[in-house]
Amino acid sequence: MNRKGIIIVVSGFSGAGKGTIMKALTAKYDQYALSISATTRDPRPGEVNGREYFFVSNEEFEKLIADNGLIEHAGYVNHYYGTPRKFVEDKLNAGIDVILEIEIQGALQVKEQYPDAVLLFVMPPSAAELEKRLRGRGTESDEVIRQRLKRAVEESVGIENYDYIVINDKLEDAVESVHGIITAAHGTPDRNMEFISKVREELNGLN
Amino acid sequence: MNRKGIIIVVSGFSGAGKGTIMKALTAKYDQYALSISATTRDPRPGEVNGREYFFVSNEEFEKLIADNGLIEHAGYVNHYYGTPRKFVEDKLNAGIDVILEIEIQGALQVKEQYPDAVLLFVMPPSAAELEKRLRGRGTESDEVIRQRLKRAVEESVGIENYDYIVINDKLEDAVESVHGIITAAHGTPDRNMEFISKVREELNGLN
Repeated sequence: MNRKGIIIVVSGFSGAGKGTIMKALTAKYDQYALSISATTRDPRPGEVNGREYFFVSNEEFEKLIADNGLIEHAGYVNHYYGTPRKFVEDKLNAGIDVILEIEIQGALQVKEQYPDAVLLFVMPPSAAELEKRLRGRGTESDEVIRQRLKRAVEESVGIENYDYIVINDKLEDAVESVHGIITAAHGTPDRNMEFISKVREELNGLN
Repeated sequence: MNRKGIIIVVSGFSGAGKGTIMKALTAKYDQYALSISATTRDPRPGEVNGREYFFVSNEEFEKLIADNGLIEHAGYVNHYYGTPRKFVEDKLNAGIDVILEIEIQGALQVKEQYPDAVLLFVMPPSAAELEKRLRGRGTESDEVIRQRLKRAVEESVGIENYDYIVINDKLEDAVESVHGIITAAHGTPDRNMEFISKVREELNGLN
């Protein structure tokens, strides 16, 4: 079958483990690619242009916006972040599913332009578990943890806009759950019109 | 999680193997039940009331219709067939997914009353393979095979009304594909409002 890639948008509370799930998923299955964002912030030590991010100037970023070269973009802490359209569409046309790790504002921008994008929201099994994971990192102050939990309350309001929730209890289960959702999505009639038409024509030929 | 069952409607061309897939699915996983139809036709040798069918009189069937006791019904060859509502709803309330093997007219009746029912259409990998399977049974005349292929052309018009197609190439893959689709369906936000509300409340409690 001549299968086209699907855009998968993944959001979720900080600490719910969406980054870990997506790394494990792309390591296990080669039909998925993680989208690489463009950003105007400086590279941190160890970051490579075109691997963690596409590092661009403010002028380049604004030109990308003007040229409709970004699927979605947002500003955080004085810097722009956005998803380059060309990278995503090249992968889709090559039959690769592209995963975008973005927040709800971006997720809704994507859904508007690509109505058949699949939106996932990663949740912890409980709020207590989320707090435990945030504290377990051992790198963040009580104040930062408090802010992340407060942010989670705000984000939780948008969950109904997503197509599926993924509960990250055991990592391996969550990976398989995401893989199962995407595999199912490939089976909708509108994503298989070529195959359906072919069988119809063949049936007509037999009659 | 307090999970409620989902109605799964399965249609597909005669010879595509939907009955075989569903038998294998329910044998492998115990969270699925096959719906048992009511019919006014007489039991065949070996058929047991309440196992293959609920065998009822014309009067009983008409009373079921009048009492809104059937989710869908249709007439074939002078006999009625229908899906008793109570059987299905008892299973759903017990957290069991109920599978209805019915044709498109019934499928659309179900979707109207249960908009979150999941509709599957089972297809062969090709029309040639469908013909081969029908001939391989060795029990049917050329004329009957020709009628079934003609009927398949008519049925194929309705495929776009289904949520997913399932291609039955290898049985085991098709079984896993159906299981994956149903598992994914359990992850929509509207089917998990209780869990989402619980996490929201817990988060509020932590803040």
